[in-house]
Amino acid sequence: MGAIEEANAKAVDILLAAKPVLRGIGVAGDEIPGMTKQKILHAGPPVTWDRMCGPMRGAVIGALIYEAMAGSREEAEELAASGQITYEPCHHSQAVGPMAGVVSASMPVWILENETYKNRAYCTLNEGLGKVLRYGALGDEVIDRLRWMERTLAPTLARALDAHGDVDLRSMIAQALEMGDEGHNRNRAGTSLLIRTLAPSIVSSAESRSAASEVLAFLTSNDHFFLNLSMPAAKCSLDPAADVPGSTLVSAMSRNGTDFGIRVSGLGSRWFTAPAPKVDGLYFPGFGGEDANPDIGDSVICETAGFGGFAMASAPAIVQFVGGTVDFALNSTREMYEITLAEHAFYRMPILDFRGTPTGIDLRRVVETQIPPVVNTGIAHREPGIGQVGAGLVKPPMKCFEDALRAFAEERSS
Amino acid sequence: MGAIEEANAKAVDILLAAKPVLRGIGVAGDEIPGMTKQKILHAGPPVTWDRMCGPMRGAVIGALIYEAMAGSREEAEELAASGQITYEPCHHSQAVGPMAGVVSASMPVWILENETYKNRAYCTLNEGLGKVLRYGALGDEVIDRLRWMERTLAPTLARALDAHGDVDLRSMIAQALEMGDEGHNRNRAGTSLLIRTLAPSIVSSAESRSAASEVLAFLTSNDHFFLNLSMPAAKCSLDPAADVPGSTLVSAMSRNGTDFGIRVSGLGSRWFTAPAPKVDGLYFPGFGGEDANPDIGDSVICETAGFGGFAMASAPAIVQFVGGTVDFALNSTREMYEITLAEHAFYRMPILDFRGTPTGIDLRRVVETQIPPVVNTGIAHREPGIGQVGAGLVKPPMKCFEDALRAFAEERSS
Repeated sequence: MGAIEEANAKAVDILLAAKPVLRGIGVAGDEIPGMTKQKILHAGPPVTWDRMCGPMRGAVIGALIYEAMAGSREEAEELAASGQITYEPCHHSQAVGPMAGVVSASMPVWILENETYKNRAYCTLNEGLGKVLRYGALGDEVIDRLRWMERTLAPTLARALDAHGDVDLRSMIAQALEMGDEGHNRNRAGTSLLIRTLAPSIVSSAESRSAASEVLAFLTSNDHFFLNLSMPAAKCSLDPAADVPGSTLVSAMSRNGTDFGIRVSGLGSRWFTAPAPKVDGLYFPGFGGEDANPDIGDSVICETAGFGGFAMASAPAIVQFVGGTVDFALNSTREMYEITLAEHAFYRMPILDFRGTPTGIDLRRVVETQIPPVVNTGIAHREPGIGQVGAGLVKPPMKCFEDALRAFAEERSS
Repeated sequence: MGAIEEANAKAVDILLAAKPVLRGIGVAGDEIPGMTKQKILHAGPPVTWDRMCGPMRGAVIGALIYEAMAGSREEAEELAASGQITYEPCHHSQAVGPMAGVVSASMPVWILENETYKNRAYCTLNEGLGKVLRYGALGDEVIDRLRWMERTLAPTLARALDAHGDVDLRSMIAQALEMGDEGHNRNRAGTSLLIRTLAPSIVSSAESRSAASEVLAFLTSNDHFFLNLSMPAAKCSLDPAADVPGSTLVSAMSRNGTDFGIRVSGLGSRWFTAPAPKVDGLYFPGFGGEDANPDIGDSVICETAGFGGFAMASAPAIVQFVGGTVDFALNSTREMYEITLAEHAFYRMPILDFRGTPTGIDLRRVVETQIPPVVNTGIAHREPGIGQVGAGLVKPPMKCFEDALRAFAEERSS
């Protein structure tokens, strides 16, 4: 076995040994290392205000209003561009965020731990569909919901988690993959399993019966609620494998709506970026390709960890949401074995005779085969303040992988 | 089109137009027409005490103790054999019951209605796994649980249903079939969907917070809870199609642990029976084929209505529970198109490109092709008082179908 193969075996073993569990809920400003009131975390590789896409700007504006740092959209835009706000990728702070991925100091966050390696990951709570901050929507409806989440949803779930104890997310994701989810764009099973797991504790521990009832009604209304757990589960599973010298394992993929970026284990924290591609998808009534922002969000961490698009064979019903055919879903998963290092030990797909999902993208194989990772995703409107317009499939730009492989070769020859 | 084809088209159209909804919960003695304290309903075609199998005797004994009509097992056995108790099939009273299927007057029952035809169906609430009455288990644990179900579970769910309104079970079964259930031996998705649908109303309407929490914990602990809804959903879907002159649609299949019986639409309420077969299955640790009672229960009403074993392609993970391979699951569904009259309009299987499940068994095709309907089922211990020992697949005896076809031909020539 060559040095790269050895390093990759080590890296993917670390990934496969991950055991993500849900430990609790805290406030971003308290829990996330280095988080301050003046800092805003966002999806994807680093990006400055002037290069930010519409939906991410919309989410930043919303976050500044939510934090009461600005009273209006105009004030918020001025502050956002003033240089007083620091923008950093979620990925630099052990966090991930769907779509715009904006995290500000007062937002509640899930606290996950990879029980095997004791590292943590954070993610905000999912707001539901429709007018929501992560798609860059604005308005009282969005801000009011965020406040309700801070005041009622998060404390109620925090008490329930204290009463219940840790939730084994590895087991929950494995079950959801046996129930038609792929864990990225279809989370109906994961959400249902989470609700039934926590419901008794929500009821017994809530401050009031009406809080319990409101929270259960909110969870029930949102089939994507589990996404904000599957993503940090993927993040804390990958992080311990993110710095193995000599490994070509892709340790992160992410997009900020302007750039698509990847990181490679043997190259540590460097990002390799290219313009974010358009999503090939199905649009909501009244919207079309001309409304779509380029690809955005940290949610592609799911595919990086071996589920999402890579497990589409387990979720054939998803083609009704993202487009394509059932054969395409099956073949997508099969093709991903060409560019991955292992089959997942816990995430198994009944329809493929319980084969483990293709896990651990090998940078070299992507470039050699020219097969891009298959990614399911949502589509945001390109203007700030509007929201989601569809969902679909996206091909990460090959340039990220080619540049990273070149850098990897240079590093080894130097 | 011949007369039989016309009659079958009519019968299967009635079946496909069914819209089973959950309306509420009542007490068997109040709700089920003709139910009395001295009557016990049981699974399968008619059977007398002296011919009853062990697990059904166990369940009758348990029911008499639960009804406080006997103080001990010995007293109950004496009363059961005394002639004072009337035994009737659930099927004769718009009801169905899993395994022994025993219903006595004080038991709570789900009230379902086929919204299209306004006919009702009834079923007890599922007790969970382990030591339970429906598998013929006995003991304080079983009786105590039945009393808790009567005093806490049923009233709490009844209030929740009043608060929530009807639950559309056609939609819920359709969703569950997209989430890895087949609706008979795998009900994890259906149970999860039911819990998330009712949880907010359970909390807001329960008599006490502890009742709500207890009920949610009970539901969460039992992946089969939905079975006792999928069965009466099938029953009330089939009943309006059960008496179409000239039709060879199989309108019921059922077993009492001694006999397997079928009914045919054009032959009305007549049963055609043969000895109940052995189940080919996987056994729990410590048990084997020699412990198994022959096939028992009304649950095969699911297959009769176009799901359960007929939808196994949607539930490949079930092979871990009932045995067989994933290919077998796919091929079982495909084979059932050979003996059925239609594809279901609402129950669709993503993995087969959203094809409708094979629905409406045609007696003639079963006999012509000699393909028996494929049935998933649980396995009860043959002695009274023990319980479930495994799960598996069973082939209905061809004799039932051959005798029925002969009777059908005789009736038409007379």
